[in-house]
Amino acid sequence: MKVLDFYRKRSGELAHLKSVLAGLAWDQEVMMPRAGAEHRARQRAALAEVVHEKLTDPALVDALETLLPETLEPRGWAGVRELKRQVEKAVRVPKSLVAELASVTALAYEQWVRARAENDFPGFAPWLRRIVELKRREADCLNLFALRYDSLLDEFELGARASWIGDSFSVLRPALTRLLERIDGASASGEKLVLDGDYPTEEQRSFGMEVLSAMGFDWSAGRVDISPHPFCVGISPRDVRLTTRYTDRNFTRALFGMIHEAGHGLYEQGLDAEEYGLPTCEAVSLGIHESQSRLWENQVARSRPFWTHWYPRLKEVFPGRLDHFSLDRFLLAINRVEPTPIRVEADEVTYGLHIILRFEIECDLIGDRLDVESLPEVWSRKMEEYLGIRPRNDTEGVLQDTHWSQGLVGYFPTYLLGNLYAAQLMDRAREDLPRMDESLARGEMSELTGWLRDHVHRPGRTEDADGLIRRLTGEPMRTEPFLNYLDVKYSELYGL
Amino acid sequence: MKVLDFYRKRSGELAHLKSVLAGLAWDQEVMMPRAGAEHRARQRAALAEVVHEKLTDPALVDALETLLPETLEPRGWAGVRELKRQVEKAVRVPKSLVAELASVTALAYEQWVRARAENDFPGFAPWLRRIVELKRREADCLNLFALRYDSLLDEFELGARASWIGDSFSVLRPALTRLLERIDGASASGEKLVLDGDYPTEEQRSFGMEVLSAMGFDWSAGRVDISPHPFCVGISPRDVRLTTRYTDRNFTRALFGMIHEAGHGLYEQGLDAEEYGLPTCEAVSLGIHESQSRLWENQVARSRPFWTHWYPRLKEVFPGRLDHFSLDRFLLAINRVEPTPIRVEADEVTYGLHIILRFEIECDLIGDRLDVESLPEVWSRKMEEYLGIRPRNDTEGVLQDTHWSQGLVGYFPTYLLGNLYAAQLMDRAREDLPRMDESLARGEMSELTGWLRDHVHRPGRTEDADGLIRRLTGEPMRTEPFLNYLDVKYSELYGL
Repeated sequence: MKVLDFYRKRSGELAHLKSVLAGLAWDQEVMMPRAGAEHRARQRAALAEVVHEKLTDPALVDALETLLPETLEPRGWAGVRELKRQVEKAVRVPKSLVAELASVTALAYEQWVRARAENDFPGFAPWLRRIVELKRREADCLNLFALRYDSLLDEFELGARASWIGDSFSVLRPALTRLLERIDGASASGEKLVLDGDYPTEEQRSFGMEVLSAMGFDWSAGRVDISPHPFCVGISPRDVRLTTRYTDRNFTRALFGMIHEAGHGLYEQGLDAEEYGLPTCEAVSLGIHESQSRLWENQVARSRPFWTHWYPRLKEVFPGRLDHFSLDRFLLAINRVEPTPIRVEADEVTYGLHIILRFEIECDLIGDRLDVESLPEVWSRKMEEYLGIRPRNDTEGVLQDTHWSQGLVGYFPTYLLGNLYAAQLMDRAREDLPRMDESLARGEMSELTGWLRDHVHRPGRTEDADGLIRRLTGEPMRTEPFLNYLDVKYSELYGL
Repeated sequence: MKVLDFYRKRSGELAHLKSVLAGLAWDQEVMMPRAGAEHRARQRAALAEVVHEKLTDPALVDALETLLPETLEPRGWAGVRELKRQVEKAVRVPKSLVAELASVTALAYEQWVRARAENDFPGFAPWLRRIVELKRREADCLNLFALRYDSLLDEFELGARASWIGDSFSVLRPALTRLLERIDGASASGEKLVLDGDYPTEEQRSFGMEVLSAMGFDWSAGRVDISPHPFCVGISPRDVRLTTRYTDRNFTRALFGMIHEAGHGLYEQGLDAEEYGLPTCEAVSLGIHESQSRLWENQVARSRPFWTHWYPRLKEVFPGRLDHFSLDRFLLAINRVEPTPIRVEADEVTYGLHIILRFEIECDLIGDRLDVESLPEVWSRKMEEYLGIRPRNDTEGVLQDTHWSQGLVGYFPTYLLGNLYAAQLMDRAREDLPRMDESLARGEMSELTGWLRDHVHRPGRTEDADGLIRRLTGEPMRTEPFLNYLDVKYSELYGL
């Protein structure tokens, strides 16, 4: 019993200290004065070292060895197994590398902000090169799988492998390209549908909050702020923070961004706070996390039923500015398919192509088959090949995303996995909730939120993504539900 | 040399982790959703435990024993001596008490917010009782001085003792009361001088920021937000955060609050970031810290020279609302002497009486001569005796300040010490800067900021408060300069 108490206490401490790191990252992007960056890097490094020390503490390693599945109930064992996995990984990575990664990425993030603003890839390249080197070293230290990339991927999508992700992506790429060509050929795709106008930030914000409230987001346990790259961080299930960014010319970016992040936020708020520190209060994987944001952003908030209720309300909030748009034309406008160089502005059809490009590039970077200097050229070439466009500059190209600057390599594929999972989960939810579209058309979303809470959020990480998808759909991850969803949706919209 | 490296690394780690704790406290008061409080309490407890572990680590204790004054240059020795002092104190307080204090105070803060809003002292009393008990235990563990209160006071005002503070306060109390009576008797004191009107928050904020910029506050290394109880936290010299609170009816509270906190903020920004982790990058004491905020808020920003420049600008920002106030009447209005139950709204004459009351009460609480239940009654009785008024309820009385809810016992006297130090420092600055008032009247404050930076901020904690005051004035702490300053100022204002 003493060993079990020690394990539980340490497990809780680690979770709390990691959540402090999450809060420091939020603060850095949302609140911190810019000059604070160097100090923040040192704070993060100091804390990352503490976490690493506590995780690799010989007393913990010994304690975990005496805790065996036969002596614990299943939930208890799941927690021990998960911590053992983390300890095993932590033991393999030297403390100095952990501290260096924490410190370099905190500084590199600031450099990325500057480089993106100034379109200065050469200025950022040395930072990225250093990060890629550190991540290669990290992967080699971890050495969990034959493929270096898989050791990094494991951190974000437990159980996933580059090989089968690559297989699925090679099915998706031509299928998405074909659909893109069919839409290009449709008569409706030629129409000019520009929603631009004057949409004051304050109204955008309050309309977004109204939608999020209807989704079930709990404002006593969350907030929404502004940051250049929208994100969601769950400091605890009772403290979940979203960000978005506003432009007065267009409300769609901020709105869909808020709904997307609130999809993540509902997942975090839906976890069982009583289980904090245990896998049962953690998300299954980033892919499953992304399934929640995509499901809300795309499957729900770009659908006809959703706007049947919300479009009149939107017109009230922005009187006069949408009068020339019928619901049908509005739906076409928010679902417009058109290749753009910017991932976060991409439509549902081309989005996957952005991810496939990044996945291929980061596999090659980590696998030493590509160097940082060539990135802008490789990026442009692939953009041309997959999307038929070239970015005008690096800010629109390789500098657009923050991930690599923060050391997040192996993260991008989870976005597309999220789309695939979302389609599978939504198909399943519709079976259980046959009147879902009617509810959505009345502005009622609590039924869907409740279903997700019961089946996806509340169980936490009692299984991996494959286990969750199999439990709910009886099948493994598949590409067909997503491709079907796109086909039905765009056939109807564009009369294909 | 190895020992010295270890000491330096640990010293830096400790400073960084403590600054994370400071950031968590800022976030809790300014940003955190209310439901996050329980988790925040656990985060703070976990981190406080880590700090305590690192401070009491036998390897550090051993290392410090081998570092001696004769082997180090003076600044290096000052750092070692300071850390030794901290280690000695930390070793005396059990880790469990540290964690309990961190956790209880984080929760009690939330209870105080609620209790103050709902005027519910009985609901808060059990929390305060628990805190007083824990602080008594802490003082007994520390056992630095014969008097329990002195062991707590030492944390905020190194070198101070309740006995000599009490002696000074017993000189101040009758002197302040006499001045109050003289002002009451003056004809000008009967005049109605109400600045209330309609002052939108946004204009208040931008005017305040304009003043702070002129004071030299660096916005690239700081920010200002809103919180119920204004404060300043220096996460590092490059990340200094102020708060204030706005009411549309009156701009004075937010403005003087901002200037006060910016006085603290300039001190934090003026410390030497290169020395981070060493006493040379720390404030001397809370009393000296408060001297900086008081000096700016009162000696500068309630003076005629200051408003000679800023009053026309203020009238521009709020057109029409101050037309009926000449500069003379405006100065009378912002320096109006009138007993109020609320400390943070008190004028310069009665402010000290609020502090003397709190100092006496907390001495008695910690000394076991007073229990929490009797607080409201004792509070009212002393208010009547010292200020001639009684609070209408506990929100206006014992619940008004956050300090005790956060475990800050021994903190209050530093506010009044700050007033005394401010007067001594300002007298000295005027000797060096004979044209200061002319500069202020032109809106130029950089001369004064520069003087403070060179003589007070930049040296950091290379001496204690007594050392600093003696170095700059050639005398110890004295009450006369403050009483003289008040006498001259109010004699002129009220024609006494």
